[in-house]
Amino acid sequence: MNTSEFRRRGKEMVDYMADYLEGIERRPVYPAVEPGYLRTLIPSSAPEEPEAYEDILGDIERIIMPGVTHWHSPYFFAYFPTASSYPALLADMLCGAIGCIGFSWAASPACTELETVMMDWLGKMLQLPDAFLAGSAGMGGGVIQGSASEATLVALLAARTKVTRQLQATFPELTQAAIMERLVAYSSDQAHSSVERAGLIGGVKLKAIPSDGNFAMRASALQEALERDKASGLIPFFVVATLGTTNCCSFDNLLEVGPLCNKERVWLHIDAAYAGSAFICPEFRHLLDGVEFADSFNFNPHKWLLVNFDCSAMWVKQRTDLIGAFKLDPVYLMHGHQDSGLITDYRHWQIPLGRRFRSLKMWFVFRTYGVKGLQAYIRKHVQLAREFESLVRQDPRFEICMEVILGLVCFRLKGSNQLNETLLKRINGARKIHLVPCHLRDKFVLRFAICSREVESAHVQQAWEHIRELAEDILKPERA
Amino acid sequence: MNTSEFRRRGKEMVDYMADYLEGIERRPVYPAVEPGYLRTLIPSSAPEEPEAYEDILGDIERIIMPGVTHWHSPYFFAYFPTASSYPALLADMLCGAIGCIGFSWAASPACTELETVMMDWLGKMLQLPDAFLAGSAGMGGGVIQGSASEATLVALLAARTKVTRQLQATFPELTQAAIMERLVAYSSDQAHSSVERAGLIGGVKLKAIPSDGNFAMRASALQEALERDKASGLIPFFVVATLGTTNCCSFDNLLEVGPLCNKERVWLHIDAAYAGSAFICPEFRHLLDGVEFADSFNFNPHKWLLVNFDCSAMWVKQRTDLIGAFKLDPVYLMHGHQDSGLITDYRHWQIPLGRRFRSLKMWFVFRTYGVKGLQAYIRKHVQLAREFESLVRQDPRFEICMEVILGLVCFRLKGSNQLNETLLKRINGARKIHLVPCHLRDKFVLRFAICSREVESAHVQQAWEHIRELAEDILKPERA
Repeated sequence: MNTSEFRRRGKEMVDYMADYLEGIERRPVYPAVEPGYLRTLIPSSAPEEPEAYEDILGDIERIIMPGVTHWHSPYFFAYFPTASSYPALLADMLCGAIGCIGFSWAASPACTELETVMMDWLGKMLQLPDAFLAGSAGMGGGVIQGSASEATLVALLAARTKVTRQLQATFPELTQAAIMERLVAYSSDQAHSSVERAGLIGGVKLKAIPSDGNFAMRASALQEALERDKASGLIPFFVVATLGTTNCCSFDNLLEVGPLCNKERVWLHIDAAYAGSAFICPEFRHLLDGVEFADSFNFNPHKWLLVNFDCSAMWVKQRTDLIGAFKLDPVYLMHGHQDSGLITDYRHWQIPLGRRFRSLKMWFVFRTYGVKGLQAYIRKHVQLAREFESLVRQDPRFEICMEVILGLVCFRLKGSNQLNETLLKRINGARKIHLVPCHLRDKFVLRFAICSREVESAHVQQAWEHIRELAEDILKPERA
Repeated sequence: MNTSEFRRRGKEMVDYMADYLEGIERRPVYPAVEPGYLRTLIPSSAPEEPEAYEDILGDIERIIMPGVTHWHSPYFFAYFPTASSYPALLADMLCGAIGCIGFSWAASPACTELETVMMDWLGKMLQLPDAFLAGSAGMGGGVIQGSASEATLVALLAARTKVTRQLQATFPELTQAAIMERLVAYSSDQAHSSVERAGLIGGVKLKAIPSDGNFAMRASALQEALERDKASGLIPFFVVATLGTTNCCSFDNLLEVGPLCNKERVWLHIDAAYAGSAFICPEFRHLLDGVEFADSFNFNPHKWLLVNFDCSAMWVKQRTDLIGAFKLDPVYLMHGHQDSGLITDYRHWQIPLGRRFRSLKMWFVFRTYGVKGLQAYIRKHVQLAREFESLVRQDPRFEICMEVILGLVCFRLKGSNQLNETLLKRINGARKIHLVPCHLRDKFVLRFAICSREVESAHVQQAWEHIRELAEDILKPERA
């Protein structure tokens, strides 16, 4: 394909993208395929000779679309949102064309420098303490990770390295393994599974702190665990506090947990993957109070801030802590400026070496919407969640299972878990809307998350009407 | 920005992308900016109100482009290639519009299933043993990782988990830490820095095996290390063999190292990040002989197979080994088919949870080029490297430092390292072409890698002429 064909095909693709997004609500949100459907539709090996582009294009509707879960449908209320916006798509196209790999400053200075500045912009939007910003000469700073899982892992590894070095400085006879055996990390029992995974990968113990009645980690429970573990010779070194848990969007009590972590000198990492975007609104910023106690903070603009995946924003107070955990400098990556102290080589901040020019997406989105536009977007979603909540509350057969703070509503039919499992099965089977469940303690609960950029009050009302009708069907025989 | 504006702006962007790539050779390949250049060109915080799209577009040439290292310029001969092709750009646009997150089969069945089938297509192109393919009911299979670094880390973690479980089954009194303290991984002293990093992250020892005169790891040196370590109570568990090292594209001796790893029951991972693409050509396939001894194999189609970053292809013989290292199943990710054995939840195969629909790029590229087109592309690059090699060999002031097998030529001026460092500084300072160096033993060596999709014989000749002229300048005073 030469450049002039790309011009033609690219414009066709732009129309296809626009048509897809414009018409998405007419597609069933959840696909009707069985496992293995695609293999039967496709040759078993790659073609020897080039194929016509028309054939590929035609196969999108024939082979791909029937198997797509349409995350941007206004009838998609599952998981948490994944962001999509036109300026982000445009920026990603540009990122593809530039196609640089920004592992060091020299590998493409613009790629590194725009990222540092965009992370400062975003940090200021959230009113993060100055210590987290790179500024022109700060000790902290931000980096774009691929996902919150990676941010948690990177923070855990940095904390592990830091505590190991500190201990070895005092007790030089201690081996790394002897230290690791005694290291313990903590998170709430409501934390995301990626926290447990980071512990597994890092080879350290990870203990779940029982959350309180609001599914929040409190200082008392954490302190109890810390005391017990220290008494038995373990070394607490890392705490993950979650703001906006995946199950039910609960918030760990940062104003309690933060000072405790500082007092105990354990690294505090905040995972606000979903909720973080909301903190750009003054009325939600209080949910982030206590961030000043943290060593690292992370949330995903690719969830709720209109920046397409992947763009997970992470800040640290001491960039040397991250860099120290990973830094290796082979000759083929050396460049003239690297010891100047002025530059950032982001490869030392992350697990992979390579990285795309992802800050372009932030730049396009922040400028196209402006802070006010982004705030309005968050507020609209929260408003829609409250609307759904009030619909649920008007029906005495249902209950709300957790205070609705942002864009997630946890609800269920009053009654057995079995009843609710049946309801969810009917909902997803009907394929008009899509939801996923969670467990809150022993209760099976349905999660209704406001997701799509295009979701409006009418969709929420239709969704509720649909859920009510399916519930009616299920409840009838019970009444008979 | 509404859909109709996106149609217009998207088409404009397609033209910008085409113009950029068409005119790329007229831009200086390496930017002339100093660290910190960008912050002075940009406001210190995000705008409150939306900005006009024209202003953003105008800033690309004003702010971004002056700081871009143009990886796709035909005068870029640094690092290794990073892939770029029009069908991959088109597929990535589609991927952006669909915007699904494919962490489980249910999260978007097409995303998972196309990936499995594309990895089979690619495995067949390389003539990988059947054991690595998913087929319809295989034990192995492929996955797209973000980078070779992640593939190495994932393999190391899987091997660590496997050996730990085996040992604990026999010796239940052994703690994980007691085992980890004794685990040792190995790679050649020529292996990529990401291997050492994987050892650091995984908390295990990583020993560098001295390579031979051709910069290859041989069984004898590996065996010596294994024996010594076992005798001192350590537990060898993981070997990384590199095919096509970053320094000089040397190849570890797989036919020797493979059987030794099997005999010693250590996990063998092959890192062929750059060279792997060449194995689709029958005349280069012999370089992969011995892959049958490996447990996992990885290379980067995003380097040399025209699939834009990121797309790092990894295969394992036993998918349960990977899954076992990470599997955690929270309720919000459960779905009806997950215990059927028929489906793949790729989140268990990788470090992050989220993942883009990257297999679309492979599908578009493989079909647009056909296997023959891809082979022709590899051959053209190898041919250009040989052309450069023969130019260097014709000049008695220069030497070739390593046999040229694929698209990389390692060369230097006969004489001191200082002389060659000066030459490289002049080359990159002139900004007509871009190269990076390496150390081969105690020699400072220049790397000339064929990179761009658009590089032709004329560019290689001009590059050589330019290098020769700069060398002339440097050598003059020495002669005087």
